[in-house]
Amino acid sequence: MSHKSMKDLLASAPKNWGRWGPDDELGSLNFLTHQEVLRGIQSVRLGEVYTLGELIANPKGEPVFPGRTGALKFMTQDKSYYKSGKSNSLPGGGEYSDDGITMYLQGSTQYDAMGHFWYDDHIWNGYSADTTMGGMEKASIVPIGEKGVVGRGVLLDMPRIRGKSRLDKGEEITLQDIKDAASKQGVVIEKHDILVIRTAFLQSFYEQSREEFYDGLNEPGMTYSPELVQWFHQMEIPALCTDTMANEMTVHPESKVLLPLHCALLRNLGIAFNEICNLEKLAAACDRHRKYDFLYVGAPLKVYRGTGAPVNPVAIL
Amino acid sequence: MSHKSMKDLLASAPKNWGRWGPDDELGSLNFLTHQEVLRGIQSVRLGEVYTLGELIANPKGEPVFPGRTGALKFMTQDKSYYKSGKSNSLPGGGEYSDDGITMYLQGSTQYDAMGHFWYDDHIWNGYSADTTMGGMEKASIVPIGEKGVVGRGVLLDMPRIRGKSRLDKGEEITLQDIKDAASKQGVVIEKHDILVIRTAFLQSFYEQSREEFYDGLNEPGMTYSPELVQWFHQMEIPALCTDTMANEMTVHPESKVLLPLHCALLRNLGIAFNEICNLEKLAAACDRHRKYDFLYVGAPLKVYRGTGAPVNPVAIL
Amino acid sequence: MSHKSMKDLLASAPKNWGRWGPDDELGSLNFLTHQEVLRGIQSVRLGEVYTLGELIANPKGEPVFPGRTGALKFMTQDKSYYKSGKSNSLPGGGEYSDDGITMYLQGSTQYDAMGHFWYDDHIWNGYSADTTMGGMEKASIVPIGEKGVVGRGVLLDMPRIRGKSRLDKGEEITLQDIKDAASKQGVVIEKHDILVIRTAFLQSFYEQSREEFYDGLNEPGMTYSPELVQWFHQMEIPALCTDTMANEMTVHPESKVLLPLHCALLRNLGIAFNEICNLEKLAAACDRHRKYDFLYVGAPLKVYRGTGAPVNPVAIL
Amino acid sequence: MSHKSMKDLLASAPKNWGRWGPDDELGSLNFLTHQEVLRGIQSVRLGEVYTLGELIANPKGEPVFPGRTGALKFMTQDKSYYKSGKSNSLPGGGEYSDDGITMYLQGSTQYDAMGHFWYDDHIWNGYSADTTMGGMEKASIVPIGEKGVVGRGVLLDMPRIRGKSRLDKGEEITLQDIKDAASKQGVVIEKHDILVIRTAFLQSFYEQSREEFYDGLNEPGMTYSPELVQWFHQMEIPALCTDTMANEMTVHPESKVLLPLHCALLRNLGIAFNEICNLEKLAAACDRHRKYDFLYVGAPLKVYRGTGAPVNPVAIL
Repeated sequence: MSHKSMKDLLASAPKNWGRWGPDDELGSLNFLTHQEVLRGIQSVRLGEVYTLGELIANPKGEPVFPGRTGALKFMTQDKSYYKSGKSNSLPGGGEYSDDGITMYLQGSTQYDAMGHFWYDDHIWNGYSADTTMGGMEKASIVPIGEKGVVGRGVLLDMPRIRGKSRLDKGEEITLQDIKDAASKQGVVIEKHDILVIRTAFLQSFYEQSREEFYDGLNEPGMTYSPELVQWFHQMEIPALCTDTMANEMTVHPESKVLLPLHCALLRNLGIAFNEICNLEKLAAACDRHRKYDFLYVGAPLKVYRGTGAPVNPVAIL
Repeated sequence: MSHKSMKDLLASAPKNWGRWGPDDELGSLNFLTHQEVLRGIQSVRLGEVYTLGELIANPKGEPVFPGRTGALKFMTQDKSYYKSGKSNSLPGGGEYSDDGITMYLQGSTQYDAMGHFWYDDHIWNGYSADTTMGGMEKASIVPIGEKGVVGRGVLLDMPRIRGKSRLDKGEEITLQDIKDAASKQGVVIEKHDILVIRTAFLQSFYEQSREEFYDGLNEPGMTYSPELVQWFHQMEIPALCTDTMANEMTVHPESKVLLPLHCALLRNLGIAFNEICNLEKLAAACDRHRKYDFLYVGAPLKVYRGTGAPVNPVAIL
Repeated sequence: MSHKSMKDLLASAPKNWGRWGPDDELGSLNFLTHQEVLRGIQSVRLGEVYTLGELIANPKGEPVFPGRTGALKFMTQDKSYYKSGKSNSLPGGGEYSDDGITMYLQGSTQYDAMGHFWYDDHIWNGYSADTTMGGMEKASIVPIGEKGVVGRGVLLDMPRIRGKSRLDKGEEITLQDIKDAASKQGVVIEKHDILVIRTAFLQSFYEQSREEFYDGLNEPGMTYSPELVQWFHQMEIPALCTDTMANEMTVHPESKVLLPLHCALLRNLGIAFNEICNLEKLAAACDRHRKYDFLYVGAPLKVYRGTGAPVNPVAIL
Repeated sequence: MSHKSMKDLLASAPKNWGRWGPDDELGSLNFLTHQEVLRGIQSVRLGEVYTLGELIANPKGEPVFPGRTGALKFMTQDKSYYKSGKSNSLPGGGEYSDDGITMYLQGSTQYDAMGHFWYDDHIWNGYSADTTMGGMEKASIVPIGEKGVVGRGVLLDMPRIRGKSRLDKGEEITLQDIKDAASKQGVVIEKHDILVIRTAFLQSFYEQSREEFYDGLNEPGMTYSPELVQWFHQMEIPALCTDTMANEMTVHPESKVLLPLHCALLRNLGIAFNEICNLEKLAAACDRHRKYDFLYVGAPLKVYRGTGAPVNPVAIL
């Protein structure tokens, strides 16, 4: 049980509602102007490309937030259909394979829609939470998919800095940790940067039993503090990308409130959340080149009224 | 019925099999080196971003190749679950919406896996077509999703050049048309460019009845000719992106063979196919700025053993 | 547009709400006591069995009410998985095939849940329509699946009586037609009989183009009249089974109200609806033997909170 | 690892292949003639109905054979769609709820298709196992769904006889146990009876953690012995129904062969398998009335080329 409500916890937290008009569905992604795109372009020096999506329909299982399940991928056409006489070759002799998938839209690497999470009956920009019923009428994933998230990304590699292979359950990242990490890495976080924070936590999913992984699940990461939220507000961070399922510590330690940053950053400030990324190869390259900034390009699928959508983000070093 | 087989038609067509070793699954995407990525970066001048994905689970329907169906998107959590007592708010008061999807992996904007289409029992690089049974063991979409398709893209806007709103069924684009289009647009197609060809054909899907659209379906586009394939081979084109369902004229006019470029370009040369794009806004911007090259970034979802996967490609002008 | 509302149309129509207590979810199926089951048993003389389910995932398509789609059935295991090395035989050498399905629960032969259809914000027995949000909390398909629908069934073969292969769009069946049909067939409809009405209408789906079938769709069947509803009420009919998608004429001719019997019979009287049956073989047998009553056994799948569920009903002559 | 192959184990086991012609897909269900149906009818005395299907899409989870997953059931229409303006009421004011499901066809109470399990490259009646590729061309679930399984059922309540709440993992039921159980219950197993064997084993799924349930999973039940198979052969048992996932002990104790009865009874003799039933209420009623025979009616869904299909079997006491 929480000892305090989200409403109390965030009573004095800043909001960007109305800042981009009453019809806005993009939130802080509005900060990503043409200039910011060009700033991202200018950060590229090596031409190395890293993709941040996790494997979907992984036979070893997929790390999903409790309540969701991994994808079910199925064949609908392959060579066996021709061999067994179920299908004929196309005129001339062409043949093909085909398949489909059933998956949670937030069941792997994805962007949250701006209206995906809320409290007090209102989602981003003040729209009624009733607009979520039967599909996201407002602040769905479509505007994000239409715009695309493109700008300068900065990686903060927390486990490398802390000298461990990955952060543990419940391990916190404070604002000071963020600042120190940038400093130690020799990278300057600029206004409007897309923040990419590595914890390597989800890699434990593939190494542990399901029970061990989910037992007492409390993801490592940032959590609500007035100064942290104020910093995101002042830095006008457009998007947050991590390699955890929820981009934040699951439980706020003092209040026991669940997922307060989903409300403070996503719902209130309109900061886009890109979750369940795989940052292993990117981080190794950043370390190798001592270069922690890059062009970040992430465009989720445009799923009609989606609460979120899969994406395979790209970092160009 | 076809009057000639694919095998006869492509008897003397070039192949890149073995060029990148016996284990290659990336084909001509291997041409996209760090240098080519940087060449793409250098083509950016404006910072304008265009996303090329079509709307998924569109209530108006989705243009899919016959045999497939549009996506089924469904809610699994929204405000109504809290209102009706089906779900409790999270500790502290947070609430969320959630949803899932059932779709063909090639049912909207997507990349074909390198092994998706074949003839004569062998897919790209000579792997047995038997490897497609029960999932793509070889040349699946995963290596493409891992690498990402990043480079200089060049748009050829065929309807604008022909002074019409869109190409008609069965309307051909020859190699000479490609060259003339580049010339008229004042853009030079360079070696290793990602070719983006607009036909606007799929826009007719949303304006016509299903019957009208599918009746005598023969998509406009390029089709097999020795010189066209030779040109792609010499230019070392890594990827072809169009706004049609199959990236080529459905039926080869002389031989009646179906989809010969899927064999000549994809299977034989290893050129990646990005289909069902929406190029309307990008084309308008290219026309407005008289600038037809851009950084192209397309990274399909990494779906285990997938025959293809959805993608929302990004063009940065 | 309708000229009258459902509420006006059914203002004086009878209701069984509360008849079986405030917690009832079975409605008129309560009439199916042990005695009625034994009456059904006693109607059996030949031992001939007819199953009334339609083919699911039929490659020719499935007749579904507009808004739904046919089933997507897919293989997840078959001999090709062993041949291509994707799967190993089980210890000892056993092998198997496996598959899955994505379908609308009311996309083929099925029972409606008692609360599936409503007007005026209340479903069967007066439960709030809000209880349908996120799943049927009340009057779902589960109680029907738990009880099973077993009793004496009586077939009325309307096209045979009218000397035609099937009823046409918009062709009405009045209460008098029902009575005349029983009389002509020499069968007596008794209190608590399960009424099975053949129109053969859905057979046209397999013979026509989709456009022809759905164009101006107005299924043949009974429609609302005070005397018809009164008769069902007095006869205490527990269940209605037909070979149409909605068990009634789609549009009420005078008022233009859609599906008024769903409200008068299902919502108000609690009569269970078994739709999209295939009565062709049963009807031929009834005609052959001049025997129109039988043991009817229909038990829909027990799908948690389902709005309906598939069933393959059985008639034993 | 198994110490012996299925082929060796069943070297001298009887087969019914060809007994009903080279095109047969019904196997021992052919024994269920009109006479046997009438024999089932004659066993009814009380009019009590028991349905044997398990709850599908159970939020507590569903006991499935490893490799499968429980059903995903989702709403596509409910009152929230009208409240939020996503849908309009039908003309006149009618409203409805609707939903869909994604499930393994053998993910809950179901019938195996006659060709679902095999060894030595041939399924029931000698058809090539290659016919399973891309869908069951032969011996699919459709013929069983068309015929329906109707006859006299006899329950053997093993845990009640053994004085325990349920059988344990790996607990065997021998032919002698079968005979003794019938004798103790005072019921005579007749030729062509549908055998219904209760173990209550799956009830443990709902009481244990997943890990506990699946750890060292070896279902209780019958297993291969020459005399047991001979007895089924001589008694011409048409169908076997149990409350376990696989109708037999998972591992044959001596040879370590997996699921040998799937081959000896289903593949070789054509005995239909009805698995994952819930026999709790039926067994309590049988015990209460000291009556262990009943009319059994089970008609799986007719799923095109299905390897199996869901069913909600009915027992009428």
